[in-house]
Amino acid sequence: MSAHTYKLIELVGSSPLSIEDAVQNALAEAALSEKNLRWLEIVETRAHLEEGKIAHWQVTVKIGATIGN
Amino acid sequence: MSAHTYKLIELVGSSPLSIEDAVQNALAEAALSEKNLRWLEIVETRAHLEEGKIAHWQVTVKIGATIGN
Amino acid sequence: MSAHTYKLIELVGSSPLSIEDAVQNALAEAALSEKNLRWLEIVETRAHLEEGKIAHWQVTVKIGATIGN
Amino acid sequence: MSAHTYKLIELVGSSPLSIEDAVQNALAEAALSEKNLRWLEIVETRAHLEEGKIAHWQVTVKIGATIGN
Amino acid sequence: MSAHTYKLIELVGSSPLSIEDAVQNALAEAALSEKNLRWLEIVETRAHLEEGKIAHWQVTVKIGATIGN
Amino acid sequence: MSAHTYKLIELVGSSPLSIEDAVQNALAEAALSEKNLRWLEIVETRAHLEEGKIAHWQVTVKIGATIGN
Amino acid sequence: MSAHTYKLIELVGSSPLSIEDAVQNALAEAALSEKNLRWLEIVETRAHLEEGKIAHWQVTVKIGATIGN
Amino acid sequence: MSAHTYKLIELVGSSPLSIEDAVQNALAEAALSEKNLRWLEIVETRAHLEEGKIAHWQVTVKIGATIGN
Amino acid sequence: MSAHTYKLIELVGSSPLSIEDAVQNALAEAALSEKNLRWLEIVETRAHLEEGKIAHWQVTVKIGATIGN
Amino acid sequence: MSAHTYKLIELVGSSPLSIEDAVQNALAEAALSEKNLRWLEIVETRAHLEEGKIAHWQVTVKIGATIGN
Amino acid sequence: MSAHTYKLIELVGSSPLSIEDAVQNALAEAALSEKNLRWLEIVETRAHLEEGKIAHWQVTVKIGATIGN
Amino acid sequence: MSAHTYKLIELVGSSPLSIEDAVQNALAEAALSEKNLRWLEIVETRAHLEEGKIAHWQVTVKIGATIGN
Repeated sequence: MSAHTYKLIELVGSSPLSIEDAVQNALAEAALSEKNLRWLEIVETRAHLEEGKIAHWQVTVKIGATIGN
Repeated sequence: MSAHTYKLIELVGSSPLSIEDAVQNALAEAALSEKNLRWLEIVETRAHLEEGKIAHWQVTVKIGATIGN
Repeated sequence: MSAHTYKLIELVGSSPLSIEDAVQNALAEAALSEKNLRWLEIVETRAHLEEGKIAHWQVTVKIGATIGN
Repeated sequence: MSAHTYKLIELVGSSPLSIEDAVQNALAEAALSEKNLRWLEIVETRAHLEEGKIAHWQVTVKIGATIGN
Repeated sequence: MSAHTYKLIELVGSSPLSIEDAVQNALAEAALSEKNLRWLEIVETRAHLEEGKIAHWQVTVKIGATIGN
Repeated sequence: MSAHTYKLIELVGSSPLSIEDAVQNALAEAALSEKNLRWLEIVETRAHLEEGKIAHWQVTVKIGATIGN
Repeated sequence: MSAHTYKLIELVGSSPLSIEDAVQNALAEAALSEKNLRWLEIVETRAHLEEGKIAHWQVTVKIGATIGN
Repeated sequence: MSAHTYKLIELVGSSPLSIEDAVQNALAEAALSEKNLRWLEIVETRAHLEEGKIAHWQVTVKIGATIGN
Repeated sequence: MSAHTYKLIELVGSSPLSIEDAVQNALAEAALSEKNLRWLEIVETRAHLEEGKIAHWQVTVKIGATIGN
Repeated sequence: MSAHTYKLIELVGSSPLSIEDAVQNALAEAALSEKNLRWLEIVETRAHLEEGKIAHWQVTVKIGATIGN
Repeated sequence: MSAHTYKLIELVGSSPLSIEDAVQNALAEAALSEKNLRWLEIVETRAHLEEGKIAHWQVTVKIGATIGN
Repeated sequence: MSAHTYKLIELVGSSPLSIEDAVQNALAEAALSEKNLRWLEIVETRAHLEEGKIAHWQVTVKIGATIGN
């Protein structure tokens, strides 16, 4: 990270496939409204269950984005 | 929670009455600008004191809201 | 607590009314299968939201119960 | 909070009624020996159980009080 | 989650393949004795090593299941 | 730990003698109902006091046991 | 804090000079888009290194701002 | 614990012998100025080293004492 | 630290200048009533804001002081 | 784990592919200088982002290795 | 601690006898390769179980050692 | 951070002047034995007291350094 100011946004992404895919879905949503996404950190990993199986992973991430220019 | 992406916003609600009422005041404020509020979690519970009594409760909550459609 | 062994069980109780009522609902369920409940601790306090309001509180508790005799 | 020094004291208040009432009982005790109580934070919420019911709530709080004058 | 009481059970699942597969193995074991599994949360992720490689992942999960009916 | 599924149970053991003895008392109780106990971790160490002295240590442990076969 | 609702925003400020200066840079950025900033808390303090020296401090802060009016 | 208010005091006890003895030394000091000590919890366990050996254990405890009457 | 018993007191010091100065103000207040202050640890660093700037830093410290003689 | 002494080393592994692959890259690096690697634990999971996508996962692990013989 | 720089190393010591003895075994191993060991802190206390009994305690410690001269 | 493996080392730096200076002293020591230092994080901030004043700050940092090439 260089000498900028960043903001942190917190999202929960979902996917039936994997933890990584749930993170990528959160990231895709963030990219619609924020430019200059720089890093993320996984905060919590949960899954919603149906019929005794994983219906989808739900992964909470904090994403850092450059603000200013 | 179904297979959506959610964002988390963090608010502090106040009330002279109770912890629950402070949370509901935070929620009422969130509902003015966000649709599709889905769940919340209490993060911290404090109170402001005056004359040795509780003047108002101050409760920090994280609120999850569906984004996208 | 006197010189016994205790087990800890973890439950989530729900109530539309208050945090205390959600705890009491968890406790009532525990009392159906466990005797000698002795203390509890609140671990997490969440709420499920509908139409921008609290539909019910969901409170996670650890309950300590005497085992042996 | 203005530019003073504060001390933090930690108490456990009890009440058969509610979490808020247990906090107020701790606060009433603190007010007997400390002036200038300014804020508090809930640190832990437990309950003592009897006959499978809540006999009293036991809430640990940190209370901030102005020192000096 | 609707207005039920849930219990939380804590398991460690193992797999040589992936973190997700270790979670699914824990879940399959839970499904043998518990009905109505609803959600899980990953608590800890470890791996057992042999010959400098990952022999199997060991993932601790808390699983929430509806109790009562 | 080999490639099994484990469950975690949480107990509080007591002893007037030492922390280690309180853990062993919890373990002895666990061994009455669970086979294949494999490891434990101390979660919390408290003591009950009487007349200004330690009446008994109260140690909370999580114990891991193999499930399945 | 009086009886308002507050929102919390999380920023990372940078400075080659000091921890305090990094916080003030984050605050200056926040003041461009938010009115009524009331308090902040340092969440994490890191530094980016170049040539074995501190190139700039990177300090994560949560900032509380009054919402509503 | 019955329906009283308690205060928590935090001490560090030392002993060359054992963790338990360090706790008892802290407790003996507390008993000089406080009546009605009821429970304690170990918060941190450290040791001071000399010549590569443990010179004394240093154990931080929180002690709960009944206030009022 | 040598083989004594210590007590821990928790204070919040304030300063418009810097984090270090807020700590020193807390320490100066502690020195008025306690002898034999030995070490401190920063527990929390906050700031009160006015007009979008830092009005004063508010730093919570735990201070260890020898008791007995 | 049998009756040995272990040391813990902390590494950050990277991979564009998955969390598991980042862990395995950290492990491969550790195996170059350490014999007798026995277990690891994931401490933190982050990702570096470029063009709004995950450029590589960065996973911090603690690895336990037998020392002595 | 005087005005030096220290490094922290993290070890797991084992013993069938007690928590203190497991710490001393970790310390003896550290003393073989490091001079000037100054303090330690217990980070985690686990035990390996065999036949429903404690086969050996496994205690994780952070040890501080002076570097430089 | 680019796609490398990093190791984390943990040091305590001291200084009578400021928190930042204590960090820089730890960093200067690390630079004597490690190349390619990339980032650091403050883990704990303490101070040693003499005569009721700060004799020196003691700041624990984790420093990340590229390994391999």
